[in-house]
Amino acid sequence: MQKKQAVGMIGLGLMGLPMAKRLLDAGIKLTVWNRTPEKAESLLSDGAKLADSIASLVASVDTVILMLANTPVVEAIMRGPAGVLEVLSPDTLVIDMGTTAVINTKAMAADVISVGGKYVDAPVSGGVIGAENGSLSIMAGGPAETFNDALPLLEILGGKITHVGDSGSGQIAKAANQVIVGLTIGAVAEGLALAAAAGADPARVRQALDGGFATSRILQVHGERMVRQEYPLGARCTTQRKDLQQALELAESLGLELPTTELCRDQYDRLIASGDADLDHAALYKLYKA
Amino acid sequence: MQKKQAVGMIGLGLMGLPMAKRLLDAGIKLTVWNRTPEKAESLLSDGAKLADSIASLVASVDTVILMLANTPVVEAIMRGPAGVLEVLSPDTLVIDMGTTAVINTKAMAADVISVGGKYVDAPVSGGVIGAENGSLSIMAGGPAETFNDALPLLEILGGKITHVGDSGSGQIAKAANQVIVGLTIGAVAEGLALAAAAGADPARVRQALDGGFATSRILQVHGERMVRQEYPLGARCTTQRKDLQQALELAESLGLELPTTELCRDQYDRLIASGDADLDHAALYKLYKA
Repeated sequence: MQKKQAVGMIGLGLMGLPMAKRLLDAGIKLTVWNRTPEKAESLLSDGAKLADSIASLVASVDTVILMLANTPVVEAIMRGPAGVLEVLSPDTLVIDMGTTAVINTKAMAADVISVGGKYVDAPVSGGVIGAENGSLSIMAGGPAETFNDALPLLEILGGKITHVGDSGSGQIAKAANQVIVGLTIGAVAEGLALAAAAGADPARVRQALDGGFATSRILQVHGERMVRQEYPLGARCTTQRKDLQQALELAESLGLELPTTELCRDQYDRLIASGDADLDHAALYKLYKA
Repeated sequence: MQKKQAVGMIGLGLMGLPMAKRLLDAGIKLTVWNRTPEKAESLLSDGAKLADSIASLVASVDTVILMLANTPVVEAIMRGPAGVLEVLSPDTLVIDMGTTAVINTKAMAADVISVGGKYVDAPVSGGVIGAENGSLSIMAGGPAETFNDALPLLEILGGKITHVGDSGSGQIAKAANQVIVGLTIGAVAEGLALAAAAGADPARVRQALDGGFATSRILQVHGERMVRQEYPLGARCTTQRKDLQQALELAESLGLELPTTELCRDQYDRLIASGDADLDHAALYKLYKA
């Protein structure tokens, strides 16, 4: 791309907003759209343009980044009336950085390519902290050439970018990631709950375990939240539950049973039913505190 | 301790043997005993003395290190006829570095103290690799003064030594550790199995996830074993199963339910029943490979 890149960002939630901020700070010409336009306000003073419709955003940029809440929202934004697919001009690059179902991703990539566009699935891990400081892990799927087109933008947002494979591979990796994150939270919750119930200081136990085979980012970050019994976001319980459910649907479509993932999904259901939907996913620990 | 320390080591299994080797390399005067004395042979040329009985070992040293397979063996060695407790001289320090049940540990510490001895529970994490290169994480429980007595020896064996609290606290931390290790292996197994079944390269997925919130020692070490589908020890499935069972018994005694730990224990039962008892615990992945 020779001309100065014009980027459009759709979705300014917990993750999208700090990612948009990083793009602006890097000098990217950015147009944004959000269902709730008020969320864009802090970006406008940094030079972002607010589009009044998805169609006008897509018409004015050469790259569209999606950072949306879930698969149905991505489908609506992409395929709805006056949606991205309807107005896409040839050579426009679409990068879906949310956690979207693999089957929908593969279909969407094919449809974008069929109208002359390019598509990369590039979901992320690393949470709000990673979005703010540009240290996200980015798992990308798509043709190598398209991945290379997306790479300069991804490098502004991520500390580690892996081209996993063909279209959908990024989302497959993200599904695996969300399974591992959710189940590791469950692992740390059961371990620390046992230590606390047995009369040890969970803060010292967490410190003692860090460095051995129990070491994980979850033990460090989410384990600390459990020890303090404070659950600042992070990622919501509802988001973790949604991602586990999506992974289970993918597994079911492949005839694969994931019993621990099912159990963990059911635990998040109980937690959400008890009123803790909007706490950080580390709050799974609350299920074990009698 | 002014005089040159004489140390006795009971138990020369997968972990005990390389730990004994490190003590010898550090210049410690070491006497060893093992149910199968042949296991000591490689140590004798390095200067270790082989005791012909537990009683003669205990009589000739001021510190006894136990590195035994499980709680019943520790009970037999400590309380059996001509066992450690029967022949212990005052001021002898007993350090149990195996994974022993918390209730038994507390009772044994009290009994050792009642005959004038000193007791530290100091179980480890880090596997054979950690034992060989002295990078074990050591979780210690006992009075501060006794912990300080044990510390110079522990520093030869471990890279990180934490005094968690009173007698039994080291074993509580180890129970938490084993729960987290077993369940994190389950987490990585379900995540990588999903990625493989969905058609992504699990090696690339493992690399893509490393650095994000799914990052763990287990993802790095055991995840690599899963990707290769090779299961060199490490730690045996039977050992992991035993430790999960022991943690569940501790939880039950406290009225705490750990459903994910129960599920993981059941999965190791299935794996062991299918003939994989002696593989490394990363072999849990085999349950998911159709």
